[in-house]
Amino acid sequence: MKLNCDLGESYGAWQMGQDEQVMPLIDMANVACGFHAADPMVIRQTLALAARHGVEVGAHPSYHDLPGFGRRSIHHSPEEIEALMLYQLGALEGMCRREGLHISYVKPHGALNNDMMRNPELLKAVLRSVRCFREGLPLMIPVTNRYREHQAMAAEIGVPLLLEAFADRAYDDEGQLVSRRQAGAVHEDPKLVVKQALSFARDGGVYSATGNWLTLPADSLCVHGDNDAALDAIRAIRQALANPES
Amino acid sequence: MKLNCDLGESYGAWQMGQDEQVMPLIDMANVACGFHAADPMVIRQTLALAARHGVEVGAHPSYHDLPGFGRRSIHHSPEEIEALMLYQLGALEGMCRREGLHISYVKPHGALNNDMMRNPELLKAVLRSVRCFREGLPLMIPVTNRYREHQAMAAEIGVPLLLEAFADRAYDDEGQLVSRRQAGAVHEDPKLVVKQALSFARDGGVYSATGNWLTLPADSLCVHGDNDAALDAIRAIRQALANPES
Amino acid sequence: MKLNCDLGESYGAWQMGQDEQVMPLIDMANVACGFHAADPMVIRQTLALAARHGVEVGAHPSYHDLPGFGRRSIHHSPEEIEALMLYQLGALEGMCRREGLHISYVKPHGALNNDMMRNPELLKAVLRSVRCFREGLPLMIPVTNRYREHQAMAAEIGVPLLLEAFADRAYDDEGQLVSRRQAGAVHEDPKLVVKQALSFARDGGVYSATGNWLTLPADSLCVHGDNDAALDAIRAIRQALANPES
Amino acid sequence: MKLNCDLGESYGAWQMGQDEQVMPLIDMANVACGFHAADPMVIRQTLALAARHGVEVGAHPSYHDLPGFGRRSIHHSPEEIEALMLYQLGALEGMCRREGLHISYVKPHGALNNDMMRNPELLKAVLRSVRCFREGLPLMIPVTNRYREHQAMAAEIGVPLLLEAFADRAYDDEGQLVSRRQAGAVHEDPKLVVKQALSFARDGGVYSATGNWLTLPADSLCVHGDNDAALDAIRAIRQALANPES
Repeated sequence: MKLNCDLGESYGAWQMGQDEQVMPLIDMANVACGFHAADPMVIRQTLALAARHGVEVGAHPSYHDLPGFGRRSIHHSPEEIEALMLYQLGALEGMCRREGLHISYVKPHGALNNDMMRNPELLKAVLRSVRCFREGLPLMIPVTNRYREHQAMAAEIGVPLLLEAFADRAYDDEGQLVSRRQAGAVHEDPKLVVKQALSFARDGGVYSATGNWLTLPADSLCVHGDNDAALDAIRAIRQALANPES
Repeated sequence: MKLNCDLGESYGAWQMGQDEQVMPLIDMANVACGFHAADPMVIRQTLALAARHGVEVGAHPSYHDLPGFGRRSIHHSPEEIEALMLYQLGALEGMCRREGLHISYVKPHGALNNDMMRNPELLKAVLRSVRCFREGLPLMIPVTNRYREHQAMAAEIGVPLLLEAFADRAYDDEGQLVSRRQAGAVHEDPKLVVKQALSFARDGGVYSATGNWLTLPADSLCVHGDNDAALDAIRAIRQALANPES
Repeated sequence: MKLNCDLGESYGAWQMGQDEQVMPLIDMANVACGFHAADPMVIRQTLALAARHGVEVGAHPSYHDLPGFGRRSIHHSPEEIEALMLYQLGALEGMCRREGLHISYVKPHGALNNDMMRNPELLKAVLRSVRCFREGLPLMIPVTNRYREHQAMAAEIGVPLLLEAFADRAYDDEGQLVSRRQAGAVHEDPKLVVKQALSFARDGGVYSATGNWLTLPADSLCVHGDNDAALDAIRAIRQALANPES
Repeated sequence: MKLNCDLGESYGAWQMGQDEQVMPLIDMANVACGFHAADPMVIRQTLALAARHGVEVGAHPSYHDLPGFGRRSIHHSPEEIEALMLYQLGALEGMCRREGLHISYVKPHGALNNDMMRNPELLKAVLRSVRCFREGLPLMIPVTNRYREHQAMAAEIGVPLLLEAFADRAYDDEGQLVSRRQAGAVHEDPKLVVKQALSFARDGGVYSATGNWLTLPADSLCVHGDNDAALDAIRAIRQALANPES
């Protein structure tokens, strides 16, 4: 069970995240590509940091929306999705050359991620762009009850999927994250976070907020690096995953 | 003697240039990469057009300055130059994959081009980024009296050079373009343009504005596609180059 | 019956519209404020042109979306709407000072206009921002069957309304424009455009696409200035309005 | 002797500065106008905070350069300077209306400030824009040995000047700040900072880095609010200014 984290989200004079601290703790770095965050120098520094710690580099493409940090839905045609994906994947891959790295996977950011999970036409456009970029390059999407359907769609287009789960978020009975607007959406108790991480890793699923078992096979857990508590949570998850029976 | 032209410089709802008309007339398309002009959809359409007409694709990277169209000097460290070059080369190469194309050469745009020709540290940074992006990828720079010096610098870093000349611009005794602010900087007479194109192609140089012979070996002539007169000029140059003795 | 037109929509090196030709033909210029189009120099030139021709200046604020030309819905809270409105109204008013002009009215652009007509919370936020900017400043909105409801809402917040109609677009039975995606949405026949302009001016309404009479009291007709046919249409409307009985 | 501080420099999801902490400690807030930092919501919140603490609002306009934070010189004609100034002053004044505030003064930011202090044509353009915006509105500029010359230039255009000094920076014999690239440019010792603040307030000048007395009459001291040490420095300066003889 690998840990992935969104990184490289500073921009110009503005700092975000604790990349130096979080990079040594994770396996997969989702690197912003300049459309919701990051500029070429931020990307360069993030890739150098990933290379130093031997962390896999994932592209973290987004709608082009710096003021909204890629969190706002903006209507795009499938052709526009393909174009903005290839642009960002190429830009990051181009910058990887200096470090002798390659993009290992692709994880769309924010509203683009949400929209593709709701709209199969957009998900297909994302899949086509990833397939076009490189054969065998995996797309990382959130695991839900519909993961078999998503796997079939991806297989048809020829893209391997990586399924991502969250240790710190409650799931509803459809295997989707409970909205942040609802109470209990985010686990505040660090022990609960570790327990859910272990549940995904050892048992292949999690209990929903209403107590129903969900079989959700995850390849990677998404963790956060914005504050000290988040770093502690990563360390606790790491330790638990290393000693699952303890 | 190949003809190159800046293309793909529309942006969002704004059109620029007559790309549909000019593409069939040229050999090499300098495609904007999104930093001074173009967005992913404009790039996609420009590359599709280049593919249809079998035109070589060159990257036309720039300072990040849409409101200034990349024509304003903005201070960058050599590291920043490398980063913005690799980002743009990668982005364009990523988008080329959909068309089965590859970038054939790199020609910096506007103020970045001017600045690198004045500042060897910037030119070296440009050369390093091109070399890092792909072995054998050529950089296109304006030919001047200092072309041997530039060739030596490029050879040291391992980048082939393409030398570019202008048929419609007067040259000073250093082999540099006479500033547009001076009278006679731009040849208005179409016959003079054709004559200068032939001079570069057949005689390997041109007479300066003050009447001195300049040996300037050019690989490509830069032409323009913004209006009907410009298109006529390209056709006239094409015809003259095809029948140099007529 | 005044004629209003969207103007000042160039940006940096990119030209849009035929502002020089259209300005002498209209009464009210909807001037882009830099969020979907225009930069400070474009605004300066547009205001100087309006001053020269004695044309009223309206603010034409928008979502902040240059690549999408303000045509894409982007979620904003009412507070965000107020903030982006006041910013743009202020910016345009600031630039008016050089010409001794003042903003005479406000007409939101594109997706912001569409969204406020669908969502009363957004329309109220727009109204509050206009009221806050200056007492007595009118808001221009499209006239529909619901115009009395809109007038009541505006009156409650203390903003005069200007109602706008279109001479070149078919109306449905709710008094809304027929979607451009449907056949017959745009009147291609110049005579039909003039007839509809006269219908609004003389009869206070128009027949819907399905033949039902709509009473739609309009203060202003929206015209376009992007091409020669559009300019001809404005001239024809002007002439017909001047001689309504001919 | 009033204390001024640059504020409101967050942008979208990116935070900068400790505005909540610093606002109660200062007299004059230099509020970013959206060109180097800030968006309409950041400006709204900053103005609300200034209103709550009764702090004067100054416009802090800049070149349009978010990725470079307004710190990079970008060539502008005097007309372009006037246009970008009026746009930003207007935008901020528009947003002030919601709080019942008005801009009290104007202090250009970063590279625009540096460039106008070097180039009289740009300073005149800045002065003209401030004069055009409102009669009596003061421009704040750094005090140097040339302050009388600047006062004469401003008087001719009809703009009051506010002269600004720095307590934490060494001055050279021309009364200009020693470049940050040189050792000793920034006073690290808090006692030295307080001493220099008192020197400006009580003695109307400061000793240069080489020990020469400079008569530099300052209306305001520029302080910083980015970290806890900076906040402590403001408190120490405040206390010393309140008890200058202690």
